[in-house]
Amino acid sequence: MAGNSFGELFRLTTFGESHGKAIGGVLDGCPAGVELDIEKIQLELNRRKPGQSAIVTQRKEPDTVEVYSGIFEGKTTGTPIGFAIHNTNQKSKDYSHIKDSYRPSHADYVYDKKYGFRDYRGGGRSSARETASRVVAGAIAKQFLSDIQINAFVSQVGELKMGKSYQELDFSLIESNPVRCPDPEMAQKMEDYIKSIKKEGDTIGGVITCVAQNVPIGLGEPVFDKLHATLGAAMLSINAVKGFEYGSGFEGIKMKGSEHNDAFNPDGTTKTNRSGGVQGGISNGMDIYFNVAFKPVATILQSYETINKEGEPVTTQGKGRHDPCVVPRAVPIVEAMAALVLADFTLLARTNKI
Amino acid sequence: MAGNSFGELFRLTTFGESHGKAIGGVLDGCPAGVELDIEKIQLELNRRKPGQSAIVTQRKEPDTVEVYSGIFEGKTTGTPIGFAIHNTNQKSKDYSHIKDSYRPSHADYVYDKKYGFRDYRGGGRSSARETASRVVAGAIAKQFLSDIQINAFVSQVGELKMGKSYQELDFSLIESNPVRCPDPEMAQKMEDYIKSIKKEGDTIGGVITCVAQNVPIGLGEPVFDKLHATLGAAMLSINAVKGFEYGSGFEGIKMKGSEHNDAFNPDGTTKTNRSGGVQGGISNGMDIYFNVAFKPVATILQSYETINKEGEPVTTQGKGRHDPCVVPRAVPIVEAMAALVLADFTLLARTNKI
Amino acid sequence: MAGNSFGELFRLTTFGESHGKAIGGVLDGCPAGVELDIEKIQLELNRRKPGQSAIVTQRKEPDTVEVYSGIFEGKTTGTPIGFAIHNTNQKSKDYSHIKDSYRPSHADYVYDKKYGFRDYRGGGRSSARETASRVVAGAIAKQFLSDIQINAFVSQVGELKMGKSYQELDFSLIESNPVRCPDPEMAQKMEDYIKSIKKEGDTIGGVITCVAQNVPIGLGEPVFDKLHATLGAAMLSINAVKGFEYGSGFEGIKMKGSEHNDAFNPDGTTKTNRSGGVQGGISNGMDIYFNVAFKPVATILQSYETINKEGEPVTTQGKGRHDPCVVPRAVPIVEAMAALVLADFTLLARTNKI
Amino acid sequence: MAGNSFGELFRLTTFGESHGKAIGGVLDGCPAGVELDIEKIQLELNRRKPGQSAIVTQRKEPDTVEVYSGIFEGKTTGTPIGFAIHNTNQKSKDYSHIKDSYRPSHADYVYDKKYGFRDYRGGGRSSARETASRVVAGAIAKQFLSDIQINAFVSQVGELKMGKSYQELDFSLIESNPVRCPDPEMAQKMEDYIKSIKKEGDTIGGVITCVAQNVPIGLGEPVFDKLHATLGAAMLSINAVKGFEYGSGFEGIKMKGSEHNDAFNPDGTTKTNRSGGVQGGISNGMDIYFNVAFKPVATILQSYETINKEGEPVTTQGKGRHDPCVVPRAVPIVEAMAALVLADFTLLARTNKI
Repeated sequence: MAGNSFGELFRLTTFGESHGKAIGGVLDGCPAGVELDIEKIQLELNRRKPGQSAIVTQRKEPDTVEVYSGIFEGKTTGTPIGFAIHNTNQKSKDYSHIKDSYRPSHADYVYDKKYGFRDYRGGGRSSARETASRVVAGAIAKQFLSDIQINAFVSQVGELKMGKSYQELDFSLIESNPVRCPDPEMAQKMEDYIKSIKKEGDTIGGVITCVAQNVPIGLGEPVFDKLHATLGAAMLSINAVKGFEYGSGFEGIKMKGSEHNDAFNPDGTTKTNRSGGVQGGISNGMDIYFNVAFKPVATILQSYETINKEGEPVTTQGKGRHDPCVVPRAVPIVEAMAALVLADFTLLARTNKI
Repeated sequence: MAGNSFGELFRLTTFGESHGKAIGGVLDGCPAGVELDIEKIQLELNRRKPGQSAIVTQRKEPDTVEVYSGIFEGKTTGTPIGFAIHNTNQKSKDYSHIKDSYRPSHADYVYDKKYGFRDYRGGGRSSARETASRVVAGAIAKQFLSDIQINAFVSQVGELKMGKSYQELDFSLIESNPVRCPDPEMAQKMEDYIKSIKKEGDTIGGVITCVAQNVPIGLGEPVFDKLHATLGAAMLSINAVKGFEYGSGFEGIKMKGSEHNDAFNPDGTTKTNRSGGVQGGISNGMDIYFNVAFKPVATILQSYETINKEGEPVTTQGKGRHDPCVVPRAVPIVEAMAALVLADFTLLARTNKI
Repeated sequence: MAGNSFGELFRLTTFGESHGKAIGGVLDGCPAGVELDIEKIQLELNRRKPGQSAIVTQRKEPDTVEVYSGIFEGKTTGTPIGFAIHNTNQKSKDYSHIKDSYRPSHADYVYDKKYGFRDYRGGGRSSARETASRVVAGAIAKQFLSDIQINAFVSQVGELKMGKSYQELDFSLIESNPVRCPDPEMAQKMEDYIKSIKKEGDTIGGVITCVAQNVPIGLGEPVFDKLHATLGAAMLSINAVKGFEYGSGFEGIKMKGSEHNDAFNPDGTTKTNRSGGVQGGISNGMDIYFNVAFKPVATILQSYETINKEGEPVTTQGKGRHDPCVVPRAVPIVEAMAALVLADFTLLARTNKI
Repeated sequence: MAGNSFGELFRLTTFGESHGKAIGGVLDGCPAGVELDIEKIQLELNRRKPGQSAIVTQRKEPDTVEVYSGIFEGKTTGTPIGFAIHNTNQKSKDYSHIKDSYRPSHADYVYDKKYGFRDYRGGGRSSARETASRVVAGAIAKQFLSDIQINAFVSQVGELKMGKSYQELDFSLIESNPVRCPDPEMAQKMEDYIKSIKKEGDTIGGVITCVAQNVPIGLGEPVFDKLHATLGAAMLSINAVKGFEYGSGFEGIKMKGSEHNDAFNPDGTTKTNRSGGVQGGISNGMDIYFNVAFKPVATILQSYETINKEGEPVTTQGKGRHDPCVVPRAVPIVEAMAALVLADFTLLARTNKI
């Protein structure tokens, strides 16, 4: 209810502030018998962690996950999987300048109004550091969903938009460059652009596209918990996300029904897939694909004017180690959230029929 | 869990197929003491009902709500509000042609796969008729949230996009035309266009923009249940919706942080509002605004090829009385879902502090 | 959250006041494909309804259920089952005497304090009439759980306690007498006793014992949602219930571990069953049995002193048509709640393993 | 859903096996601004921990809680409180004898059937060690509920039953003896009896009585989530509990309504309190009191016959360090669960009225 849990049957609850002792979570409802490779969890965390390349924040956080429970002799036991990532690089002094003033387009102000006060160190609970816990749980979900392939990648940075459809891409190239764009030429352009933005002390937005393949027919519930509605909520819950569209998305509104409808093949697949793998909220066995829009990160390393707690104007200099563009590191988070949604509906789909 | 409930504290559960005896729902958690005008509920239903103008489906459904409980002497009692809308215009024969074949881009096929069989009459549970129950509950939520103004309107039909920002509009004009577009000139163009689409037996998509004003600071939970994530899920759960964006949305990705950030005024309001009234998932007191993309309705009154249950190709003639464009009638549904989200978070926000 | 829903996957939400237009509910999550005999639902309702014998309230309520949705061609469709029971015998004047005063050991006073006011007619939402909706849903659950036998019966009325264990009883005799005690001799004593209590205008408490047989191994979750904990909550939620015990229950506390432990047979069954069919919160395949204690109904047809809204002492004469002993009519309610619990855990158990 | 969470708004999720790396949990929904004394949490843990006296298990576990998040400058921040208790005394070899055989009246057998395999070390997740996490959360709940007094104590061990009502007791004596019975004379008898049981290598059951005082009027929801139903579920979820009764409980069934009803005083309090502080599921401001029945612990230090995984008979010798009687150490657990229930309903009660 207080918003720190996600999923119903395959359910993650997270905790932790960016500068507290640890962040972590409990994954409850993972079925027993999943052979779990802890190394794979750590590899996903490494995809998200700071300092991995020249175009992301240079903070040094090892982000090592410690699993406390729920696994025995290499397999999940059906009991909750508790885990923690200890915070080891807490430079609280870096944040002293925001203790008494509110950064524009950050959560500082609303936290103070909502809760009466806040842990101001590094954004506290509103820090994107929280998403590391999602990546841990998502990595477990992926291992549970071993038949499903989930691939996310950067498809746009600022105005730089990849022209290709996902079918034209080689997903194995996603990890070949620091931007995580599987089109090497475009990746290079994006990287150069992010570097120039970084030099300005500024930030830029972007889009992540995600594709889930080999999803069985029947996931998703028909009314409020439509598969795409839950995917949308999952993506919109990631820091800095401003929009979500699936299948034909916002472009689809310009089409006529006669153009937009996906005709059936005799085997129940469809000739086109403007539906994005979801019909009436339920997966139809075709590829699920969607776009997630990220705004430019609010923290800029420039001087800016804002207000303090008393409402007085103050001039502040943004500092610290921040991402000039959030999308490269957000790729594993998008995949993790997609995996959590699909794992949850996979379990729920077991209850539809007698 | 089975997806027919929405909200946690202010919680709607709906039931009903388009051609069963009745649709309806239970609204649980509405606080005691709300003075409830049943007439206002019916007025909202009338905005959604078929047959209201020349550009919507010509089905004749009175859509009269019957309230069974939870109200005493004109006020809510704090106990669940049960209600039903009896189905009176069930022309089941209209749908006999879809009993054994699957309409493209409809839920027919996935329902059969998920549940083993389906109530094929009029789309059954997947019919947009289900949204009438949402409108009932939303109308109650609006009366509970009497200080908040929620206005939705049509901002795009096909390629016809209203150029004005919502601040330039007079919301009192929304109901002045059958399209529900508050820009009379554009409304006329949209109406003409929808009529031409209808003549072709085709359909067209559109966008609804929604603005919530006077929302108090502090609604929304910081991690998974961010205000905009829940609004997004709410909107994406409406039939035919393909995308959601709030504040700067998909356009915001092209901006730099230095351009995108909303500078504070001394009173905590912001000079711009690219954030769309939400910071870190929590309302900041500014206007909340978002766009909802609707695809063209799948039912077209043309001949089309599809498959039957045996996977054999069949040619079918679309018939019945359907909407050429769903957005005019979806305006009250978008408002209803927004009201349900805000009502739920309003209650939850009472528990944040000691 | 507001307490009008029960179950997670197999989930009932109820609505309705005793003197409103209707009571009813929505049963969500019942799997598709259950062949449903509506007549059997009505038969269960008839076991609960007023006026069925000389020892229960003489109100005349037909309690006819109307099912609105979720069933097609005789089978459940997997969509929510909405239903209502219209109130036809609302003698509101009977209750005018309680409008301004508080009946002792009733919910009148706390409702006024909690909600600010109340629907005082017939107890409103706190009336046991609400349990009719549970019986409807329980009757559906029983048909879903066709392999499990659930039998409840009256085992004690006041000091009259049946000496036999449930294994010595013939459950087919439960419905052979108005008390619903399968020991005919004891049933006669109980009936005579209840009649004498009724003559005094007084009421008396009792115990219902319930036995669930042929329950598969593995239902129930190990920590908070232990099978017996959820059964206990289910029973304690029935009006007038004051206690719950399962297996050896309160008597078991006097035993030593060496006496109390249930030794295994080679096939995994146990030689004794002090555990009551539940080990560590999980069904072990043995009979589940438990006792539910009901207090004497608070409404007595005698003169009594109480207070009015202003806190002034008033003398009131109890009137109306009430049960001298609640247990005979509560038997189907206990069975219904047990069925709802077992149905919910049956679905959940499908998600334990890969 | 998988049963490792408790509460809705004030919600605890626990994890951990007795012989894994750590147990712990996440407490979500605790309002911001609670001044939290970590020392008090540890004191409650010390009341539960092994080795505290001669009549409890002699295992040595420091049970030191480490709080990871949700607290800043001595106060709760409104964000989730993550915590862990590291397991330091894992003598796994002690449990090798149960790896392949099933202890009678333990959860070994049903875990294997439900999940396919189990972490057999020390009972794994079914170990009462899990309740330490509940005590941590309960200690926080108590500090949130600073106006409410919750006192639990041992009122019966085997046949030794304290004759006094709780009003005659001095709660400050509860901690004066290792049994936690506030009647010193009876406490001594109980202690002697438990010692003799321990000498036999046997175990014995008992009853804990709990009293919550100064509870405001209006906690609890009227239908399924009655205050006493949720208290009952909370208590029945504690290991070894077999029964729950509140107010007049099982004794109340023998009374007539005219004897049982609680007459009002002019101020709304009642002259008697057979209702146990709850009317119609809602607190009425009077003391809430209830009894919780614990069976004799299943682990006896005697030789016993059982079966192995193949269903073959084996003779086993119980060993390890176990409690001869569980009730002295269960007192803080009962209080913790009561506090969690009251904290949850306290938050929910803020949403009843406009």
